Amino acid sequence: MASRLQVCAGGLLIGGGAPVSVQSMTTTPTKDAAATRAQIRELATAGAALVRVSVPDEESARALPEIIENTPVPLAADIHFQADLALLSLDAGIHKLRLNPGNIRRRKDVRRIAERAAELNVPIRVGVNSGSIPGDVREKYGSGVDGLWAAAERHLGLLGETGFTRIVVSIKASDPMLTVSANLKAASLCDHPLHLGVTEAGPPSTAGVRSAVAMALLLSRGVGDTIRVSSSGSPLVEPPLGLEILSSLGLLRRARVVSCPTCARARLDVAALAEEVSLALRTCETPITVAVMGCEVNGPGEAREADIALIGTPTGILLWLRGKAAGEVAPEQALQTLMREIARFSAPGGNCERERS
Amino acid sequence: MASRLQVCAGGLLIGGGAPVSVQSMTTTPTKDAAATRAQIRELATAGAALVRVSVPDEESARALPEIIENTPVPLAADIHFQADLALLSLDAGIHKLRLNPGNIRRRKDVRRIAERAAELNVPIRVGVNSGSIPGDVREKYGSGVDGLWAAAERHLGLLGETGFTRIVVSIKASDPMLTVSANLKAASLCDHPLHLGVTEAGPPSTAGVRSAVAMALLLSRGVGDTIRVSSSGSPLVEPPLGLEILSSLGLLRRARVVSCPTCARARLDVAALAEEVSLALRTCETPITVAVMGCEVNGPGEAREADIALIGTPTGILLWLRGKAAGEVAPEQALQTLMREIARFSAPGGNCERERS
Repeated sequence: MASRLQVCAGGLLIGGGAPVSVQSMTTTPTKDAAATRAQIRELATAGAALVRVSVPDEESARALPEIIENTPVPLAADIHFQADLALLSLDAGIHKLRLNPGNIRRRKDVRRIAERAAELNVPIRVGVNSGSIPGDVREKYGSGVDGLWAAAERHLGLLGETGFTRIVVSIKASDPMLTVSANLKAASLCDHPLHLGVTEAGPPSTAGVRSAVAMALLLSRGVGDTIRVSSSGSPLVEPPLGLEILSSLGLLRRARVVSCPTCARARLDVAALAEEVSLALRTCETPITVAVMGCEVNGPGEAREADIALIGTPTGILLWLRGKAAGEVAPEQALQTLMREIARFSAPGGNCERERS
Repeated sequence: MASRLQVCAGGLLIGGGAPVSVQSMTTTPTKDAAATRAQIRELATAGAALVRVSVPDEESARALPEIIENTPVPLAADIHFQADLALLSLDAGIHKLRLNPGNIRRRKDVRRIAERAAELNVPIRVGVNSGSIPGDVREKYGSGVDGLWAAAERHLGLLGETGFTRIVVSIKASDPMLTVSANLKAASLCDHPLHLGVTEAGPPSTAGVRSAVAMALLLSRGVGDTIRVSSSGSPLVEPPLGLEILSSLGLLRRARVVSCPTCARARLDVAALAEEVSLALRTCETPITVAVMGCEVNGPGEAREADIALIGTPTGILLWLRGKAAGEVAPEQALQTLMREIARFSAPGGNCERERS
């Protein structure tokens, strides 16, 4: 596997050994700067390290300066077909472009974009989707691995002619295993950083699973430098799913809620508590483990490994702290108790820092 | 990798090259036979090929005959500590036991269970969870891979003494990567079929991702014969998540909805349509692909590969059938049109069979 080059998008390093970052994309009309700014802030809070906005027309491009001003995370502009929109985005101060040179009609326009992007140190992502392989490529190579890579090669060739090097490559298919094969091929044939994603992955339940399958098989082999889980509907679900994938692979340390599936043995409303706790921990960067366990079969075992745990038992609900029993809790106080202990662990200078330092 | 032995649970083959099956577990009190029967039927409809019920007391065991009668899928009884409950479950006609011999105090009780299970051709799953490693094992081997395997070995040793061979092994940790390492070790050291799961995986959003990560890394190497996604809350989400994992890995052919993440370009309410269509296709075993695409950028490409597609365009919504444009659809007719075409594809003897045969 070739080692990856590194690019920098508004301070965010991608590739070359930088931590794998999580991206998302707005669904607001970009020309509505206020709505787009608000969604970017929400996505950043949810864990996105870079947010992409679609720039389908001049009105959207004209809104970019206002959107970019004071943005909490770097922004990428998604451009199709129109060179002018890329140039306007660059002039507005965009941090990254997603643009396929093969879709820009005139080579001199590709050169203008590349030169301006190079001057501004703005990377360009060349992104091939299974849904947008050019017709002639599809006819010659099909719409599998070979077609996807041939499409990427065409765009990379056009950009390469200009001498531009700050390139990120993405090859996304709606079939997770095709996404895996295509990215393994890309990783073996080029040394640009790779942006991973499964395209058109459906609503959150299927998007999370399809993306996790493809990304696990790639990231576990060291392939992939930045990821996006694409989900239909609100994009706010995307960053948590991406973070969960990285955390599951051991690529990210963060707060984790473990909770049992609940069964006939459960003596505690595990699901409701687990959901509340997960929500509360979304903004917690302290890598604490909170266990919510319905009964005494697996409860003490998980509690022993957790920082904070609640376990249902025949005689009541037990609180465990740092692997040791710490008293009983009235059922109606369960959530409140968990929240109090989490706050104590997470507070700056609180228990967590003191105990762990 | 040793090749796996095969067991049979009420007609369901596990291991030895049988297709990977999807399991789930009821959350109803097992002693409430009517509620448990109803949930088993719902889980079977949602895609579970085997359903486990907890048998924590004699009242639950006494409800088993009524639960087992006319069950749509084989059933497993989850037993802890009490040998009598295992024997009652076997006498009731249960199809599989989940039982850890190390938790049954007297060896002669383990022998009685094993002999009765062998007579009835009922397999036993020995299941180790990171939360229930025996204290002495944990002290000697820790709670990582070595501790998990040592706990499994203890149970397997006790069962092996009886000459019983119809064994399935599961080693579940709440950490997905520990689950992976432990199952790779198990696969290299024993030839029993393996049941995969990430334990205490939280609510559906995290459960799906954590399970998908671990199962992708194992199943892609041929490790794993049956799976359960454990999710806090309603178990009805578990079988679809499990099926989605198998489908993503190319281990299962079934209907697939591809839908774009929607962005500022979307000209169609993709999320609402995709959710409705996903729901409608849950009971469809025909491996059709339905694409719901917001705009004309990736729309035609995905539509070309799909059996049925709707694409938003500046001039209206287009219907594509079998890769070809098939007319325009009024926005308020979008869902109705999709449903009609899906019904035509899925109907026995309908378009689908005729076109594909």
